[in-house]
Amino acid sequence: MASDLEFIRAQRSDAVESVWDKRYGGSLPASANSALDALLSHRSVRKYLPRAVPEGTLEQLVAAAQSAASSSNLQLWSVISVEDPERRRALAEVAGNQAHIQASSLFFVWIADLNRLGVLATRQGLPRVGLSYLELFLMAAIDAALAAQNAVVAAEALGLGTVYIGALRNSPDRVAQILKLPEHTFAVFGLCVGYPDPAERTAVKPRLPQNVVLHRDEYQPVQAVIDDVAAYDATMSRFYTEQNMKTAGEWSRHSALRVSDVASLRGRDRLREHLSGLGFELK
Amino acid sequence: MASDLEFIRAQRSDAVESVWDKRYGGSLPASANSALDALLSHRSVRKYLPRAVPEGTLEQLVAAAQSAASSSNLQLWSVISVEDPERRRALAEVAGNQAHIQASSLFFVWIADLNRLGVLATRQGLPRVGLSYLELFLMAAIDAALAAQNAVVAAEALGLGTVYIGALRNSPDRVAQILKLPEHTFAVFGLCVGYPDPAERTAVKPRLPQNVVLHRDEYQPVQAVIDDVAAYDATMSRFYTEQNMKTAGEWSRHSALRVSDVASLRGRDRLREHLSGLGFELK
Repeated sequence: MASDLEFIRAQRSDAVESVWDKRYGGSLPASANSALDALLSHRSVRKYLPRAVPEGTLEQLVAAAQSAASSSNLQLWSVISVEDPERRRALAEVAGNQAHIQASSLFFVWIADLNRLGVLATRQGLPRVGLSYLELFLMAAIDAALAAQNAVVAAEALGLGTVYIGALRNSPDRVAQILKLPEHTFAVFGLCVGYPDPAERTAVKPRLPQNVVLHRDEYQPVQAVIDDVAAYDATMSRFYTEQNMKTAGEWSRHSALRVSDVASLRGRDRLREHLSGLGFELK
Repeated sequence: MASDLEFIRAQRSDAVESVWDKRYGGSLPASANSALDALLSHRSVRKYLPRAVPEGTLEQLVAAAQSAASSSNLQLWSVISVEDPERRRALAEVAGNQAHIQASSLFFVWIADLNRLGVLATRQGLPRVGLSYLELFLMAAIDAALAAQNAVVAAEALGLGTVYIGALRNSPDRVAQILKLPEHTFAVFGLCVGYPDPAERTAVKPRLPQNVVLHRDEYQPVQAVIDDVAAYDATMSRFYTEQNMKTAGEWSRHSALRVSDVASLRGRDRLREHLSGLGFELK
């Protein structure tokens, strides 16, 4: 009777050993389970089969998103499911023509939403001074991110693949226009969802060794783990070669280049100005 | 042979029907699975058993966190596991003496971390002008939030409970001091993790009806769903009574009061000033 379960457990345990190895190199420190397996197996998917998701999938993903924690239960986020091909095309253009925005089965835009609370305050005859502050903007962006990540976990549990689209922040004003966003709302990022094309090989991406990101009791200076960063540079260089990626230079260098000049921000140096235009004072 | 699995599947399906009902009222629109069940069953846990987590748990949670997407793989976050009782006490004080910060088995502080990339840029002999922009701060905060939410999902999969601690943002300078944070790092929120005390009844919290947060193709004005918000107010008033919570007034009203004056921000009106002190220009 128990053999089915034991067999599945053993298989999954093998799978976790394997993804742990891909994520970090080295073996798993403790016992695993299938939910961990699923989380560790995450990879971004940018090639989708032209197949609709089953009815009810959208609602399941939104239910998962709404089940994430929300600061003081204010629920300062919204999500827009974009189906209209013309809007998809326009959003893809904002994001540097990423084809998967048009090819994915579902395309979501996650909104930091202070508009709803502002409207409710006005209806209550209350002022809404808090909306002018950076804290509320940040709270809304975090609420949106926690919700979106739960939707990602749910999508993967349903056999779907996903990729976040940060490039919507290249032109927040254009995104606001396309989606008719009112003041005090901001499109934090997009999210493609669909069935992964099995012809496209996607790999689990190695991450920095744990001791680089995990600190004990106080922040550990980067200098103390610089050899681990160098080891990661070597791991990523091998990964780029294996995956036939044309990434130039080591991870440390091409990452540092992203913040070395304003041009590398690809227009996002104007984010604050755009947010001001969307009604966010960010005091 | 299959009966074990079918039995488990049937049980879990019942469980999902039940949490869906608690989250929204009404029945589940489509077939469910155990991962969705787990996500929908989330509730914040503030009472923990005085029991250590098994060896390896910390590393599993961090592995799950690192498996979340990261913008351009820059990995702009860190996490500090706070074990030292004195530091726990000091952090609890910042957060208005929330006892669970001291009582939880693990306590994490999630850091939006531009320091690491800044140090790497300097070592490469590159300028780091990007760190002065709001975009990079936001990117780091989002990276931290996605990572933390994956850790939450992993913790729940391991039978643990969690609660986020946003109140660390009441005094970012004091938190920076306690954790020896360098410039260009910011403690976005804390996270308690531990075994839920079964004596403490925790409930799945109802959320806004889906059509309030889910928009189709363009943002739907709040006025169009105002009856659904009113229905949620009624649901939450019943929930407060059932849970013996002393929440005054309807959800709409007490939520709107949170942004009605500066005092309700509990010091977080100074977030921008604090961030400036931590090296974030937020241009």
